[in-house]
Amino acid sequence: MSLERFSLNQWTTRYWPLPDLVAGCAEAGVTGVGLWREPVAEYGLARTAKLVRDAGLTVTSLCRGGFFQQPDAIAENRRAIEETAELGAPALALVSGGLPEGSRDVDGARQRVADALAELAPYAGRYGVRLAIEPLHPMYCSDRCVVSTLDQALDLAAPLPAAQVGVMVDTYHLWWDPGAYAAIARAGAEDRIALFQVADWITPLPEGVLTGRGMLGDGCVELRRFRTAVDEAGYTGPIEVEIFNDDLWAMPGAEALSLCVARFAEHVT
Amino acid sequence: MSLERFSLNQWTTRYWPLPDLVAGCAEAGVTGVGLWREPVAEYGLARTAKLVRDAGLTVTSLCRGGFFQQPDAIAENRRAIEETAELGAPALALVSGGLPEGSRDVDGARQRVADALAELAPYAGRYGVRLAIEPLHPMYCSDRCVVSTLDQALDLAAPLPAAQVGVMVDTYHLWWDPGAYAAIARAGAEDRIALFQVADWITPLPEGVLTGRGMLGDGCVELRRFRTAVDEAGYTGPIEVEIFNDDLWAMPGAEALSLCVARFAEHVT
Repeated sequence: MSLERFSLNQWTTRYWPLPDLVAGCAEAGVTGVGLWREPVAEYGLARTAKLVRDAGLTVTSLCRGGFFQQPDAIAENRRAIEETAELGAPALALVSGGLPEGSRDVDGARQRVADALAELAPYAGRYGVRLAIEPLHPMYCSDRCVVSTLDQALDLAAPLPAAQVGVMVDTYHLWWDPGAYAAIARAGAEDRIALFQVADWITPLPEGVLTGRGMLGDGCVELRRFRTAVDEAGYTGPIEVEIFNDDLWAMPGAEALSLCVARFAEHVT
Repeated sequence: MSLERFSLNQWTTRYWPLPDLVAGCAEAGVTGVGLWREPVAEYGLARTAKLVRDAGLTVTSLCRGGFFQQPDAIAENRRAIEETAELGAPALALVSGGLPEGSRDVDGARQRVADALAELAPYAGRYGVRLAIEPLHPMYCSDRCVVSTLDQALDLAAPLPAAQVGVMVDTYHLWWDPGAYAAIARAGAEDRIALFQVADWITPLPEGVLTGRGMLGDGCVELRRFRTAVDEAGYTGPIEVEIFNDDLWAMPGAEALSLCVARFAEHVT
């Protein structure tokens, strides 16, 4: 099986130190990694860029911008765009943020996302970075992301240039949506697919519902159907494995990566 | 504040014994109750019908039919329809069920719901009962309900007579949906609103995500906006308060009911 499109999102092996992760990917023949701002900042931005480049890896995305309910969101997202460019990553994953504390104004929160995108898109364009609006599962709507469906993400992207603003297709967040496949076709037709991420859906969900994603093949998501749909929509880019799961995090990094690679071959490609 | 449209769903005061609940409602001036099959069976169906009738209460719905992934679903739902009729309730809440163990075929599961509805609708019609398809929040899609949006419920209802098949509008399940208000207007225009239920959305969600609903006013749902939308769609029926919440369940029944009534006045009507 070719690993050409496989990319390891750093949060899948959350506790694997960055240099070990990079060495482990190189050793496993993995050429793509999705990085997160916090561990990158900890290791050093320029140092990370060099580490990854020297190992022959490509950074497929940086996670994450967004959280537009916060007062300093625009400045913070500008920094995230700059970091994405410095890492040579094509896309910055945007998790829009939820409702401000005590607010019930979900329409207002969604309008704020549209306004922030309009303000940030030209800045992203100047840096050659694409903002990837990520719809998150509706169970995160109040506290993490008021963008809940792929169609909604596409509607938000629509007024802005496709080179500056795209969408993230993540199986974990979208699998339940009866309109998911039509929306993927639409995303392709509108040239908006910035990145494709895979994880499986398993139950019961843990408290807080953040760390209960399933290893590929352990759940009920038609992963290959999603991959085929994204392919048919014209997407030829990397496929990031992004799984937040306590059991996986308890495994040694190299072992977790090896499991991801095997399951990717079995259930995705 | 008039309690005319207020109805107490039994699961809101889950551990309140049925005779106490009925007496407590009568004493509080509450005239509607939504009942559940299991406690009704425990107390006795005919005995419950008499108890409720003698207290001057109306049964606004019976919860619940559905779970169509189970092999005996049709027979079980026929019994639920008969029970609904015997209690004089206009609507049987239908929670469609999730995916069969080990299945990834969400389309197939949704088709099974359509098939079951077609089979059950005439039976419901014969008993003067309306099946109320309840879209559940997408976080329940795999294990409890493959019907995740109001539009999807309306699409399922569409081929069948409106007198036999309607939909349930529940704020807890629908609030995140950017299409919710358009779908409510559509539900009204198609004469499909069988019942309106209210609960608030709070986080963090508990493990298993079943018992984390919020007391009216404690969360981020625009309850009054929903109520107004349902009213404007032509719905004039009962509004059931259905809150699954461990803290509420720990309260004495009369106290929980009193809190629901007060919050209903403050946040819904």
